Amino acid sequence: AIDPQRLWDSLMTLAEIGATDKGGVCRLALTDLDRQGRELFVRWAEAAGCTVRVDAIGNLFARRPGQDDDLPAVATGSHIDTQPTGGKFDGNYGVLAGLEVLRTLNDAGVRTRAPLEVCVWTNEEGSRFVPVMMGSGVYAGAFTLDHALQATDREGVSVQDALQAIGFAGKAPAFVDDGAPRFGAYFEAHIEQGPVLEDADVPLGVVTGALGQRWYDVVVTGQEAHAGPTPMKLRRDALQAATGLMQEVRKIAMDEQPNGRGTVGYVQVHPNSRNVIPGRVTFTVDLRHGDDDGLSRMDARIRGACASLQAKGGVTVSIEQTVYFPPVRFAAPLVNAVRLGAQRAGLSHQDIVSGAGHDAVYVARVAPAAMIFVPCKDGISHNEIEDAKPEHLAAGANVLLHAMLDRAGI
Amino acid sequence: AIDPQRLWDSLMTLAEIGATDKGGVCRLALTDLDRQGRELFVRWAEAAGCTVRVDAIGNLFARRPGQDDDLPAVATGSHIDTQPTGGKFDGNYGVLAGLEVLRTLNDAGVRTRAPLEVCVWTNEEGSRFVPVMMGSGVYAGAFTLDHALQATDREGVSVQDALQAIGFAGKAPAFVDDGAPRFGAYFEAHIEQGPVLEDADVPLGVVTGALGQRWYDVVVTGQEAHAGPTPMKLRRDALQAATGLMQEVRKIAMDEQPNGRGTVGYVQVHPNSRNVIPGRVTFTVDLRHGDDDGLSRMDARIRGACASLQAKGGVTVSIEQTVYFPPVRFAAPLVNAVRLGAQRAGLSHQDIVSGAGHDAVYVARVAPAAMIFVPCKDGISHNEIEDAKPEHLAAGANVLLHAMLDRAGI
Ligand SMILES: NC(=O)NCCC(=O)O
Ligand SMILES: NC(=O)NCCC(=O)O
Repeated sequence: AIDPQRLWDSLMTLAEIGATDKGGVCRLALTDLDRQGRELFVRWAEAAGCTVRVDAIGNLFARRPGQDDDLPAVATGSHIDTQPTGGKFDGNYGVLAGLEVLRTLNDAGVRTRAPLEVCVWTNEEGSRFVPVMMGSGVYAGAFTLDHALQATDREGVSVQDALQAIGFAGKAPAFVDDGAPRFGAYFEAHIEQGPVLEDADVPLGVVTGALGQRWYDVVVTGQEAHAGPTPMKLRRDALQAATGLMQEVRKIAMDEQPNGRGTVGYVQVHPNSRNVIPGRVTFTVDLRHGDDDGLSRMDARIRGACASLQAKGGVTVSIEQTVYFPPVRFAAPLVNAVRLGAQRAGLSHQDIVSGAGHDAVYVARVAPAAMIFVPCKDGISHNEIEDAKPEHLAAGANVLLHAMLDRAGI
Repeated sequence: AIDPQRLWDSLMTLAEIGATDKGGVCRLALTDLDRQGRELFVRWAEAAGCTVRVDAIGNLFARRPGQDDDLPAVATGSHIDTQPTGGKFDGNYGVLAGLEVLRTLNDAGVRTRAPLEVCVWTNEEGSRFVPVMMGSGVYAGAFTLDHALQATDREGVSVQDALQAIGFAGKAPAFVDDGAPRFGAYFEAHIEQGPVLEDADVPLGVVTGALGQRWYDVVVTGQEAHAGPTPMKLRRDALQAATGLMQEVRKIAMDEQPNGRGTVGYVQVHPNSRNVIPGRVTFTVDLRHGDDDGLSRMDARIRGACASLQAKGGVTVSIEQTVYFPPVRFAAPLVNAVRLGAQRAGLSHQDIVSGAGHDAVYVARVAPAAMIFVPCKDGISHNEIEDAKPEHLAAGANVLLHAMLDRAGI
């Protein structure tokens, strides 16, 4: 069994890098703080007997040799970049649970048949650079290395320059197109980031897959005019029109329960002045669903709502899709290995579908993959008050240990 | 008669300060651009033989002596601050029409009995600092000087600091509470900012009064959470709740036709990230009505809608009134002077109620006041494409000249 205290101490030590006043972490991708976090991980991994390679998008792979190094590695990992107002556990937990597995095997003097790897994926959060889940996305061929390297932050700094600045522009190829699976298995432990496990009082979630996602940018254009002298019936108010679409997003999701989700998270009103009728409103739509047909139905409805709003006259409406990936079903043998691991550890557990995208969702395109969820306080993440219980974190790491041993063999 | 070309040239010269690519002006109150505009006005006024005083809220008064300087001044003016995407005429026209009246009298060698003054009121637009019509509001005792000086912009800069930074924190008292009228008469020429005169093809509006206004800040607070793993029915989405209130603002106004107006112009979503359910939405409400009972009905309904949204559970709602003034009827003798001026100039004209607040609305509390409207293109203002015809602007300035002479005497 893993050492709960050592895991907790590692989490708290890493959380000091970029610690915020409110107990969270701000360690944006490819900043100097990210460099410090990466260097700490490399030191720890080398101390645990690993060699670390860095690929062209800055992904890190800490490798512990197996008895047969020709076998594909059994891997785990996650990310250590955070949201601007992020927590201590999102991503960091998956990386350090992986490291804790290696340390535990070292203490026990166990050498697995297949080599083991702990991955740190670059820029999972997508806060500083879009697209989100960038490192694993390149690795899985979801988009090209060049596309990712050319992405810029709000100050115009590119991923390429930021990687070089922090010394993590690696030599290993990020994407290899030889048709062979990139890992023998990939497991990712993560906090749930939602309320389901906590509500059910279950310490472990066996993640069977992830919701598909479609993201959109919507722009509603009317006519900016003075709020005082413009009679109601002569207005072309972009915001009044947009509110109807925003409500439609919720309705579309409600009609696709239990697994449909619809969120408007970002709104920009132009010119955004108290006494000016808004002439333009830009907002985002985030639709998710457990099956691709459902996601397509949602897609058709939001596009239809935009078209009928425009047809009513008064405003024009544009909708552009910015992200799409279909729902993912994780590899059955790996999901079973997680379930068995939970049983072996004597933990109550339940199957769960990930509502969030994770690096595992991309890795699943190029290797058998699965995930392990542990509860987080009030289901809250992407927030400085994100919290999780030491015993749940330990439980998840034990399940990870069992699952990796199951796939790597002893 | 005034010199149309000189008036037009002055307008175009002032419009260069803060000119935008799209032909508008962005000259927010108490910025360095506002300083440049003020300094240009002061130079022009001094060249026209005026002395300029500055009061404690930064209002400017350019004074042309009369035959009897103990008589209360006959004044005119408006403002030169603009909306973020403002036009060349809103406010600027009233100030420069006043200056053109003085220049015309200089050319004609006419000295009036009462002194004349051209006022530039501070922060009429209310875009950078709330409350709107700040300078004239303090002058009229609608709120205190301290209240105004302590107002801050979104960066936390106070009016007091901004006034000092641009060198327009004046020595003259802003509000004088001696019961005496502050001017013998105050006229304000302004573009209509609405479609009525243009629709009727009438070049001059005799403004008989203005709609009353109530402005509010509304804050809807829910719970920020991840858009992916948070099921629809466990959400406390501040934006979805807020959209209902925004639509209610429109309904309330529609039920008070023809003179009711309701607008949501400003919205801020927190944290405003694509995949985060909004935890807090701040927005503004602007309600207007031609009679105070109607305005009270609207007030009761928006407060009721906030209360019932909160009572439904899930979110908390706060609503705070930031501006209130009742409908205004302008002084009959001055309204008549405007009407007579239009007749004397041979202009077709009609009575009109102002949908917008103007400095004249506050000045009307401490002096007899009235306004002159000229049409603007498509009724559009608070917009970079705001436009007006030189002949209409000249017509309004001529009516202003006649009306001021009528009250000041020769
Ligand atoms: N886990 C996580 O926060 N991923 C970001 C992408 C998403 O919104 O699903
Ligand atoms: N005239 C004008 O734009 N005034 C601002 C106050 C209002 O919105 O009525």
